[in-house]
Amino acid sequence: MDRAPAGSLHAAAVLPAGGSGERLGGSIPKQFCTVLGRPLICHTLESFERVTWIKDIVVVVASENLDLMKTIVNKYGHKRITVVVGGETRHRSIFNGLKVFLDGQSLGSVIQKPEVVIIHDAVRPFVEEDILLQVAISARQYGAAGAVRPLVSTVIASSPEGCLDHSLERAKYRASEMPQAFLFDIIYQAYLKCTEYDLDFGTECLHLALEYSNTKAKLLEGPPDLWKVTYKRDLYAAESMIKERLSQHLCIITNINEEAIEVGFQLHENLKHHISHVKAISLSMYKTVQDLQNIFHGECYNFICINVKESDLEETCKLVDLLKNGKVTTSYPLVVISIHLTVPNCCSSDTQTLTGIRQLAKEAKKSNILVYGLLITYSKEHLEDDASRLQESVCEGSSIITALIKVRNPALLGQIMTV
Amino acid sequence: MDRAPAGSLHAAAVLPAGGSGERLGGSIPKQFCTVLGRPLICHTLESFERVTWIKDIVVVVASENLDLMKTIVNKYGHKRITVVVGGETRHRSIFNGLKVFLDGQSLGSVIQKPEVVIIHDAVRPFVEEDILLQVAISARQYGAAGAVRPLVSTVIASSPEGCLDHSLERAKYRASEMPQAFLFDIIYQAYLKCTEYDLDFGTECLHLALEYSNTKAKLLEGPPDLWKVTYKRDLYAAESMIKERLSQHLCIITNINEEAIEVGFQLHENLKHHISHVKAISLSMYKTVQDLQNIFHGECYNFICINVKESDLEETCKLVDLLKNGKVTTSYPLVVISIHLTVPNCCSSDTQTLTGIRQLAKEAKKSNILVYGLLITYSKEHLEDDASRLQESVCEGSSIITALIKVRNPALLGQIMTV
Repeated sequence: MDRAPAGSLHAAAVLPAGGSGERLGGSIPKQFCTVLGRPLICHTLESFERVTWIKDIVVVVASENLDLMKTIVNKYGHKRITVVVGGETRHRSIFNGLKVFLDGQSLGSVIQKPEVVIIHDAVRPFVEEDILLQVAISARQYGAAGAVRPLVSTVIASSPEGCLDHSLERAKYRASEMPQAFLFDIIYQAYLKCTEYDLDFGTECLHLALEYSNTKAKLLEGPPDLWKVTYKRDLYAAESMIKERLSQHLCIITNINEEAIEVGFQLHENLKHHISHVKAISLSMYKTVQDLQNIFHGECYNFICINVKESDLEETCKLVDLLKNGKVTTSYPLVVISIHLTVPNCCSSDTQTLTGIRQLAKEAKKSNILVYGLLITYSKEHLEDDASRLQESVCEGSSIITALIKVRNPALLGQIMTV
Repeated sequence: MDRAPAGSLHAAAVLPAGGSGERLGGSIPKQFCTVLGRPLICHTLESFERVTWIKDIVVVVASENLDLMKTIVNKYGHKRITVVVGGETRHRSIFNGLKVFLDGQSLGSVIQKPEVVIIHDAVRPFVEEDILLQVAISARQYGAAGAVRPLVSTVIASSPEGCLDHSLERAKYRASEMPQAFLFDIIYQAYLKCTEYDLDFGTECLHLALEYSNTKAKLLEGPPDLWKVTYKRDLYAAESMIKERLSQHLCIITNINEEAIEVGFQLHENLKHHISHVKAISLSMYKTVQDLQNIFHGECYNFICINVKESDLEETCKLVDLLKNGKVTTSYPLVVISIHLTVPNCCSSDTQTLTGIRQLAKEAKKSNILVYGLLITYSKEHLEDDASRLQESVCEGSSIITALIKVRNPALLGQIMTV
């Protein structure tokens, strides 16, 4: 395959988002359903915005959702997006999306006709740059290209009486998924030439390119995560998958106090079994959010801050402030767990810590940061009993930390867990 | 359709569970992956055990999983199950499963050849009695029947060079799903007559019935929940769907104390917005678990117990004991939230309640009951400020209760939340 550098590609994307969501059984079209605090389509848009060689992103929505979509683009700060109204069917909507690139030209708009146009569903949020690049490059070579997947079920044809007519041999067929890419002129000409029947009842852009532009699309095996969010269970799956991705990295921040370092070390050892990548750093090692993000190449969404004094939130506050002001390049919620060491059988200042954490958590929530508290019993005496008790607490604490990170539930923010 | 009473049906089931799980990317076959604390296949078996007119359930596993499967059947107390070793392909495994009914006869076993045999995948846990009955009755009438669903993706055929050859018109085809049902002799004869090629490369039982027993299967539109757990995301979806189902009903238990009743009433009003069915009952209204279960026809997995005194766990302990001893007919985890009223700005006995709840939670966990605590600030003074503060606490408390019920996470058990 011609693996030309993406830099030389002039590509744009059209995202049909006109679906009515009837298969979800709800009144909200699925692309607007909330997943981890934001409409599903935002997650898809973010996947495209990360890809710098895709210059323009045209989102096609039903007319009744035009204002909603524009509000979403503004509210969540999406870039390079043009929102247009679609037609009554999928093909009519995509066609409308394509027309924007020509209309734009005649109006002197900044949107230019691209060499390659990528078509992708708004309800397939997990599209990676790799497959986008593959279809775009193949489109340049073959004129058209699309991602396919093996069939999960056997496909059968029904007789008019609702009985089995014949079944297809599963291995010979593929499910056509998205993304697909085309040389702009090939797909645009195909839409110009195709019949009203195609526009009304067709479902496959690759078919139009074959039928009306004589172009045999290259088929590329895509990853399983490209699936289309169709049913309610798919929304659950999408949310769980995003949470799973956000839970891969954890940064433990300790100050240079001996107890904090000891607890931090033990947590580190324990959490390694629950979370893929855990690193512990000392307070002195970072000054900016950039310093923190560099540790995990900008992929860290979880932080633990170990405060020695039970009622002292100073370190946690400092961290939260940094994250708030650091303009982290994500709209996913960050988790900060404020850990406090407490001596055995003491409950003197619980209330004080609690009030502090709850206030901090309330404030931080506005910046999409979820703050939780965790009290760990720690004795300085270093008796044998204490050591094994600390081990037990750290082990239980690690399970709680893991749960808070993976569950990422805003209803529990500001709560203090105890081990 | 002939809607004969299910009572007159002599039906049995064969569940192929021989898959290797390679598509999940893990080494554990998906039917054995843990979903809400139990292997996925347990959830499927439970769906079949609930259906009394299915007399025998034959599970077909790969030889290396025979011991594991037998252990699972024993550990989780499954009934009417026979475990047999399958063949190298799906068809060979199903055929092995069918042979048990004839072998059983010759060995004088209790397993008898059924009139109708239902075939269903172990990795489709959400099968309801309704669709099982539909396919069974249609099988009696037509000889064979199977559930189908609309295609989510367009199906295409590839040329040898990996390019598009042609695409199928989506509306004319269906995805063949499970369950399927057959007159026993029809499917058994088809397996006897079919070719080695069929046994090695075929995927569709309905096709065998058509080809070798001249039987056109009746196709029945199944619900979306019949989908096959294939990828990791499907495991997430399955777990979320089960949790969603378990979160439908909530029973609030109050004693006859005035404060408890007031808080219970307000919680009831608030929780109605989060949980479909909420009922409040007084302590005196139940003596046995049966009394509790009758409230929601045996479908209640969530209980709130309002204790007036902050450190008093008596009512919660009584409830947990009842649930423990009541042999509730579910293997899903129950949630019990112990609510305690506390006066403002007091933290005197926090530690005491905490220790009590943690011990109770540890014990209850052994019976698959998840106990959490929730402290609600309540003033008897009834000043205007207090009333609005209580309202705010109840509102926040309702969000926490809803989160604990929906998340159903064992790592947080024994923790006390505060509002």
